[in-house]
Amino acid sequence: MAPALLFRVRESALLDHIAAVTADLSAAFPGVLIGPGDDCAGVRTPGGEVLLLKVDQLVEGRHYVADAPPELIGRKALARALSDIAAAAGRPLYALAAAAIAVDAEQSRVRAIFDGVHEWGRRWSCPVVGGDIAGLGAGAAAVLSISVVGAAHPTRGPVTRRGARPGDEVWVTGRIGGSFRWGRHMTFEPRLREATGLADALGTRLRAMMDVSDGLGIDADRLARRSGVGFEIERALVPLHLDADPASALADGEDHELLMALAPGAGPGATCPGTGTALTRIGRVIEGAEAGCVIIEPDGTRTSAAGMGWDHAGGADGR
Amino acid sequence: MAPALLFRVRESALLDHIAAVTADLSAAFPGVLIGPGDDCAGVRTPGGEVLLLKVDQLVEGRHYVADAPPELIGRKALARALSDIAAAAGRPLYALAAAAIAVDAEQSRVRAIFDGVHEWGRRWSCPVVGGDIAGLGAGAAAVLSISVVGAAHPTRGPVTRRGARPGDEVWVTGRIGGSFRWGRHMTFEPRLREATGLADALGTRLRAMMDVSDGLGIDADRLARRSGVGFEIERALVPLHLDADPASALADGEDHELLMALAPGAGPGATCPGTGTALTRIGRVIEGAEAGCVIIEPDGTRTSAAGMGWDHAGGADGR
Repeated sequence: MAPALLFRVRESALLDHIAAVTADLSAAFPGVLIGPGDDCAGVRTPGGEVLLLKVDQLVEGRHYVADAPPELIGRKALARALSDIAAAAGRPLYALAAAAIAVDAEQSRVRAIFDGVHEWGRRWSCPVVGGDIAGLGAGAAAVLSISVVGAAHPTRGPVTRRGARPGDEVWVTGRIGGSFRWGRHMTFEPRLREATGLADALGTRLRAMMDVSDGLGIDADRLARRSGVGFEIERALVPLHLDADPASALADGEDHELLMALAPGAGPGATCPGTGTALTRIGRVIEGAEAGCVIIEPDGTRTSAAGMGWDHAGGADGR
Repeated sequence: MAPALLFRVRESALLDHIAAVTADLSAAFPGVLIGPGDDCAGVRTPGGEVLLLKVDQLVEGRHYVADAPPELIGRKALARALSDIAAAAGRPLYALAAAAIAVDAEQSRVRAIFDGVHEWGRRWSCPVVGGDIAGLGAGAAAVLSISVVGAAHPTRGPVTRRGARPGDEVWVTGRIGGSFRWGRHMTFEPRLREATGLADALGTRLRAMMDVSDGLGIDADRLARRSGVGFEIERALVPLHLDADPASALADGEDHELLMALAPGAGPGATCPGTGTALTRIGRVIEGAEAGCVIIEPDGTRTSAAGMGWDHAGGADGR
């Protein structure tokens, strides 16, 4: 087995292990509303507010090429975490930035990465209020870690991956495919306004949501399994970027669009409320199906979506 | 210049740069009460609660030896961040754990590190509610990053590094020195109860506080500079561990004791209120002195404390 694949198998086992050791977390700590396994954690403060917590990492050579524009590296690190806040329909409040960097890293680049994080924190109204810097051995790949605290939607509350029901419709924002190849993964806009607009307009008819980071197929499969339902997605309905390879688009990953289940008939139209961002119905939630997602090909054949994408730990080619 | 030293100089410059670009953060974002530069950030939630935010990193081969007991690696990662929450007199609420790990890392060790983080999160009433795992190249040093959300002390509010005034007394909890050499850095208890007890008992007479992580000398110098005052610490008064080398103890680091300035006469006695932890007066804050800390040797000679310890980024030998 190739090392990357081996790690993926191991990581999957590790995530299962963590899910098992944290299964009773809410019983022991009632303030834990949403524990490990969703896009964000959801917690209650002593004063009763519901916050969203998220940490995400960016690894040099895996999530970005070593000579990428440094400001965009910082931007991407923050954008990935904010995309998860969007997936819960939350509003980002504050961020922390930690970096482990080789002792021989070029100083001006390191500074520009931090500038990118701080600058985009301001633009996205999520100021970076603290951080940590640690030295790694010469030549080591940099590791950036961004933590974000967000506020849950004031009326809808946190949207999770659980909640899709048979009869619901499956919708996606924007367009899919080719993000890594064509550089969009460095410049995507977290769908914060879109998510808030949907939660404002739909309330609990916005049943379940996640951000598409590892591939529409594998992520739809995860959303379906987490809700304990079956999804059918029609490949012909999935809106692709014009430059995307249709053969791979559902597995490309790094789209950072929102994938959601909406109550029957709740779809608000061809754009997200209050924005011009496309919103497209691509499938449905099926009664009595096995949990998971199936892709319906144009010729009617059915393929499991579970293998279409990348593991969290990153595939061999850089996600 | 040796690489580690070079990095330290650069890191110092980077921290100065970050301080400059975030200097107006509170003006732009009034919810930012304490920005970069203190032990924790302090922020206000939309509902008006004051939270403490902290991220800290642990690097294999730098903050722990590669064959250290894995549960203690996880424990230490969390304990370091909690020690910073203690420094603000806060109460930890929730944690996030991110790990970047070589693809060829031993699976059972990785799992045991996570078990350590989760287990100690429960014990310290700071459940780990989410995380992220990323793969690094074969043989790469592991990087753990722990983020903690805490609640500020309900009456005292967050204690910061600012606030020491001429006439105050300088106090320290526990004992100092030899932590890395004798392994205490893997097993120290964050001084959460001590800090809360002091804030309960003293209120604003607990003027300023930090945790001693890089060496009592350099950290006292930082505390003094951040408050804009001069400290005098009498070496003969500093309580040392019996196994510590008196010649190096003030520079050893990894003590994770609390160093504080108390209003004149406010010292509550030889132990922290409500605990058996030693509390010792070791110096004073001086009128009219240049900002920084001076060590008074037993023979009366005076030495700047600024060089006694390690930079955040880690020294050459493993901090």
